[in-house]
Parts: sequence; C-alpha cells; structure tokens
Amino acid sequence: MNGEIITIGDELLIGQVINTNQAFIAEQLNSVGIYVEHMTTVGDNLTLILDAFTTAMSRSNVVCITGGLGPTHDDITKQALCKFFNTDFVVHQQTLNKIKALFQQRNLPLTQASADQALVPRGCTVLENPIGSAPGMLFEYHSTAEEKYLIAMPGVPFEMEKIVADSVIPFFKKKNFSSIVRHRTLKTTGISESVLSEKLGSIQEITGTDGSLTLAFLPNPFGTKLRLTVREHSIEAAEQKLSHAETLIRSKAEKYIYSSSELELEDVIGELFRKRKLTLATAESCTGGMIANRITNVSGSSEYFLRGYVTYSNISKTELLSVDENIIAEYGAVSREVAEAMASGARTNAKSDIAISTTGIAGPAGGTPEKPVGLVWIGYADREITFAMKFNLGDHRLRFKERASQAALELLRRKLSSIPIQE
Amino acid sequence: MNGEIITIGDELLIGQVINTNQAFIAEQLNSVGIYVEHMTTVGDNLTLILDAFTTAMSRSNVVCITGGLGPTHDDITKQALCKFFNTDFVVHQQTLNKIKALFQQRNLPLTQASADQALVPRGCTVLENPIGSAPGMLFEYHSTAEEKYLIAMPGVPFEMEKIVADSVIPFFKKKNFSSIVRHRTLKTTGISESVLSEKLGSIQEITGTDGSLTLAFLPNPFGTKLRLTVREHSIEAAEQKLSHAETLIRSKAEKYIYSSSELELEDVIGELFRKRKLTLATAESCTGGMIANRITNVSGSSEYFLRGYVTYSNISKTELLSVDENIIAEYGAVSREVAEAMASGARTNAKSDIAISTTGIAGPAGGTPEKPVGLVWIGYADREITFAMKFNLGDHRLRFKERASQAALELLRRKLSSIPIQE
Repeated sequence: MNGEIITIGDELLIGQVINTNQAFIAEQLNSVGIYVEHMTTVGDNLTLILDAFTTAMSRSNVVCITGGLGPTHDDITKQALCKFFNTDFVVHQQTLNKIKALFQQRNLPLTQASADQALVPRGCTVLENPIGSAPGMLFEYHSTAEEKYLIAMPGVPFEMEKIVADSVIPFFKKKNFSSIVRHRTLKTTGISESVLSEKLGSIQEITGTDGSLTLAFLPNPFGTKLRLTVREHSIEAAEQKLSHAETLIRSKAEKYIYSSSELELEDVIGELFRKRKLTLATAESCTGGMIANRITNVSGSSEYFLRGYVTYSNISKTELLSVDENIIAEYGAVSREVAEAMASGARTNAKSDIAISTTGIAGPAGGTPEKPVGLVWIGYADREITFAMKFNLGDHRLRFKERASQAALELLRRKLSSIPIQE
Repeated sequence: MNGEIITIGDELLIGQVINTNQAFIAEQLNSVGIYVEHMTTVGDNLTLILDAFTTAMSRSNVVCITGGLGPTHDDITKQALCKFFNTDFVVHQQTLNKIKALFQQRNLPLTQASADQALVPRGCTVLENPIGSAPGMLFEYHSTAEEKYLIAMPGVPFEMEKIVADSVIPFFKKKNFSSIVRHRTLKTTGISESVLSEKLGSIQEITGTDGSLTLAFLPNPFGTKLRLTVREHSIEAAEQKLSHAETLIRSKAEKYIYSSSELELEDVIGELFRKRKLTLATAESCTGGMIANRITNVSGSSEYFLRGYVTYSNISKTELLSVDENIIAEYGAVSREVAEAMASGARTNAKSDIAISTTGIAGPAGGTPEKPVGLVWIGYADREITFAMKFNLGDHRLRFKERASQAALELLRRKLSSIPIQE
C-alpha cells in the first residue's frame, strides 16, 4: 500500500509555519503498512488543490490531506473536496450539536462560520474530532483493481493527531495490509556523524546485501540518529532483522547510544533516577532553564527532580548556590572552578543526591579570545565526586543552549550507567 | 518568478524528521521576489529523485533542493544531479583543501568519504559552506524564453541556512525580479481564533476586493497569527497596503497583538524590561523552567533577568521563595495563595523589580475534580501589587507548559504596557 500526504496552506508555502503534520502522519501510516512515497504542499488555491488531489489519487492508494478546514474565509479544502467528488454539502447533525454545546458552555453566541463547520461533503464518513470543531472526513472507493482512500483532516496538529489516533489508524489496522515496514532508531550523542560512520565500518556488513534492510545517518544538534528500516512479510522477520543489525551496531558504538526508541535523553535519565531512587537538582547559568525544562517535560519527574536554580547573575550564584565570590572574581563566572562550585552548592542546598551545573558564553556577545562564545563548563556533583568538563559548542545562541543541555544530560546518563565520561 | 522546493530523504517520508528546511527556504525566496508554488518531498531513491527534478524544472524557474549531500552511503543527490545534467564529477580544490585542514585541525585522519565531499558535478557554481564539508551547488541555464536555476544544498539545517544567507539570497537579490511579495504577521495571544475572527468582522473591509491583499488566520498553542500577504510592483506600494490593513486590524483587536514582526513574546518583553530598566525573577513550578528558558533565549537577557527558581518540590517553595508551609498545607500547592506567595517571595529574595510565578497541574497524573489537569495559577508581584490569575490550559503536558509560559509572559507584557489584564 503506498501513501501520499498533501498539506494545504499558504502559510506553508511562504515559510511561516513549519510542517509538522507530514512527519506525524507518515510515521503513523508506516505503522499500519502504508508506505508514504510522496509528500506535496500546495497553497490555498482551488485549482492547485484540485490538481494535487488528481495527481495523488492517480498514483497513491491512501491520500491524507491536512489543512483548510477551519472556520475562516481562507479555508477552502471542503469546497475542493465537493468539487473533486462532484457532490454537495450536508449537515452532520452530531457535529452541529457538539459545536452548539461548546458555544453554550463557553457562553458565546454561535457564529455562522462555526456552525458551518458541521457541513461535510455528501458520502463521506465523518471522523470525529473530540477536541475541535472541524471533523475529519474519510472517502473510499474501490474499483476491481484497487482500493483508494482519501482522508481530510484539520491542519491544527493536535486535532489532526487525535483524529489519526482515534479513527484513521484503527480503520487501516483492520485492513491488515500485507507488506510490513518497520523502523528502529538508535539515538547517539557525543560523537560526530563521520567519526560514527568510521566506527561502524562497512555498512553492508550491518545491513546485508539483499536490500530489505537500510541504514541512514541523521545528524541534528542533539546528536546523530541511526535509522534502520526493514521491509518484510511478517513482523517477526522484520523485528529479527532489526535486532540483529542493532546488535552489530552496538558492538561498535554502544556507549554513544542513549535510546533505541522514541525516548529522548531526558526520558532515559528519568528512568535511571527513578530506578535508582536518586534525586536531582540543576544549577544553570548559560542554559537558562533549558535543562530543568527538558527534565520536567517528563511526566512523573517530580519524583526525582527537586528543584532548579537559574542563576544568571553572579550574586545569584553566591546567594543560591553558595559559590564563593572570590572564586568568581579570581577565575571568572565561566570557569571550571565556578562550574564545580555551582554543582556542589546546588547539591548541598537542594539536599539532592546529584546536581548538574552549566556556565558558559551563549553569545552572540560576551566572548573573549581566552573564553570565546560557545565555551561551556558543565559541572557534576554527587556524594563521592565533584568535577567539571569543558565543551566548545559553537556560536549560535539557541543551538548552543540545545547542545549544552544535551551534553549535561549525557553526562548524567553516563555517570548513572557507569559508562566512562571521557570520549 | 515561481519557485519550488524539493527536500530529499527517507527520514522525511517515514516521519522521523520534521521538515524545517522548506519553511526557511520559502521565506527567504519570498524576500527576493520568488514565490514558492510547490513543495515536494522524495526518498533516497534515484528514479524518484530524477522524476522530481524533471517535474520541478519543467514548471518552476527556481528549484531549491536540500538533502542527500552527506558523506554516508545513503546520500545520492550528487549522483542524481550528474545524471540529470548529463555530466561527470570534478574535484573542487578549494573545498578539498578546507576539508583537509579541518581534519588536520581536529587531529583526525582524512577519510575517503569525507574527501569525496569535494567532488561536484562539472559545470556547477560551488556555493561555499563555511560550517560544513558539503558545499552548495548552483546550476543555471537560460533559454530565450526563460531563466532556470537549480540549487542543491546540504540537508543539515544550519549549513543550508548559512549557504542561503551567504550565497543564494545575494545571488537572486542582484537579479532584481520584478514582482514583490510582502508579508506582515500580527501575533495575537489570549483570544481564540473564532472570537478573533468575530472581532475583526468583515475581512474584505480589511483586505479590499482587488485580490492583491490576503489575510490568513494561523492558530497554534501560543496564540493566533494574522498573516497579511500583498503582491505589488513596488516595495512602497506593498508596505503602504500592509500598513493600512494593520491599522484597521489594530483598531479592532489592538490589545491582543504582541508583535508585528518575527519577534516572539520573550523578545517583546525583553525590550520592555530593557527600556524601563526593570529586573525580573521567575518562580516556576508546573512550567519547570520553560519561562526562564524562553526569557534567556533572548540575547542580552542577562541585563534584566536576575535569576529563576524552579521549585518543583514543596520544600523548595518554602526554602527558596519563603512560601509559608501553612499556606501550602491549607490551600494546596496549586492555589491562588501559593502563586501569590511564590511571586512575592521570588521578588523579595531575588531583589528584582518584578517576579512571575506558576503553579499548576501539567498532568497526565495528579488531577482531582476540584483541581483538574490543566489548571494553573499564574502569580505576579511588583512593588505595588501582588496577584494571581487562574487558567485552564488542557491536558497535554507539553502544550500545557507552552500555553502556561505564554500566559505568564503575556501577563508581563500587559502589565509593562499598561494594558488591562482581564479579557
């Protein structure tokens, strides 16, 4: 089964909005054996939308469309669907009732534009949208040769995601499409793409030569992901091939791999803290709260995360973390000594088992020849040891913060997993 | 001049990577009068890549390609370009020297895969990549009827962005394409899309009826963006139309608009603090550092941001923010009283002019009928007043944090700009 995703909206074509819907839908379709071969984006233009529908329906079995279902004048996807399927609008009573109830609940008068969201092209199956007013729509028609499905959903990411999870995936799961595509991703950090590639050596040794298994290198500011993709006829065969390849990769680069699932580094660390019943405090200067923010993105983090200090001023380092002001005066706020004192002070004052600290120069201003923009010291303290490590993470402020937060979390992972810290 | 963007990579088709390159390139091309009409994504498959090249070059004047230029085996874009232009590879000596120097500097042996990054299809113009080893490539050919340009760049976002900024935009700027497309975006928060639409009333009154100006509503967790797009023959005429429409919109919804540029709410607030020479401290529970993180994303924030407290545990609220433990016991950690005490305590202890606080239930666990998941109290304290406001921000943990951080920053903006807080 091949699939296609059409995302509709001028905001995409002018670059105002980053298209996150494509990735979400593609991944979901993959999980039920639909392999996306094309993604296209068109503007809020009836002719171009109809063109895209025609092309997509001619080459793809499953076409997922997002965008243009909202209540405002620039939303024309439903019109395009009526035209494409040569049909008219009918009121979907259940949706209309829901919209009415929603407005009543909020004490707002029902607007015509909102009521019109209950209109759907005749003949479609309505896919309920429990968290928004525009429902999803499923059109199916089968010739003797092929099955064809077209699904239209709102462009608001979390509404679309809900409809996909509640309606689209269960619908296709029942169809039981035969070809299985499975992925496994090994997330690495602390090693560059090309050095990692060298370490792995021959790719064919890992993937074999029959073409059913592929390996891709995907670098980003947080590290490099290794993605294995397999196409097989059974889940068992697929999983077996993936596991074999993962074992080979791990034998060569184990210590850089922090996750082989969707888990982020903060999730992995959360699990380690939970299991070992340890507690954590953070003391951040240059990362400005990003580490605490990432740690608290994990549900249940209050079990092990006690508190975070964002000590942007020197005086806050002294007051909150008991960093000796003479140390700051002698070595500068960005120094091994201050990073160590911050971690140690955070641990003592928060009464946590472990503390981590950052102090660096995020830029763009504030660099000197000895301490350039991008320099960061990451400090660590537990009951037995206090130390700090130096990194140079480049001169882009946000990327610097991302990389520094990643390096700090990776330091925690390695300490808690007894993996050597250096290299 | 119409444009097209082709992004290449299996990681996009399986949904592992979110495509941020499209948006960036589209916006940049817009700025030099190239209007993107199509975006397509294809996998690492030679046939499909060549198909995409053929389609794009037949319908678009400017085709920008990203991805598949890396050093690993799955990168085949350069091969496809050679095939498409029916040419062979030549060594680009300058790039080779740079790669050699880079490896020397890092004390690494030069790998063949890395050296091969200096190979480019004969006849292209090399676009220097100062922060990576794969250079960009520009192909141009002009028939009597049309100019055609094809540009290939690495898929790593910041390398691509650098090449676009350094080479691509200056190149097209010189061409001076006649049709001008200009956008202006008014970012609103604290009002729903449909209520905002009602407030604005007739869209045609704002945009006029000749079709040169359009208005789009773009909702996201942080608010709704109003995007005006105009096509004109001169920058002056375009800017005049945009300003006129902006004035009309502002007359109806001024107080919800926090930015009419690329500035985020944290930038706007930074400017307000700087101008008024005020200082800020944050005290976060449920947002877990996200507010501090956003504030410190702004370069120069150390001028006004003194410190942040991430007080996840009750005891940290008492120790760091001097919140009376009896208040926590009586009203619960998520309460008006605690939010106010947090803000007030943060202000006193940090010796800042202003402090902001959050305490809420980010979920998915921890809700009760009286205090459901999504409930948050946002506290504010300055020299004259201390108060807290209640919000219900839904049950998705990350979205909850985003919305709560936005509501807190908006509260700051309104206070500092003397805009009424309520409604």
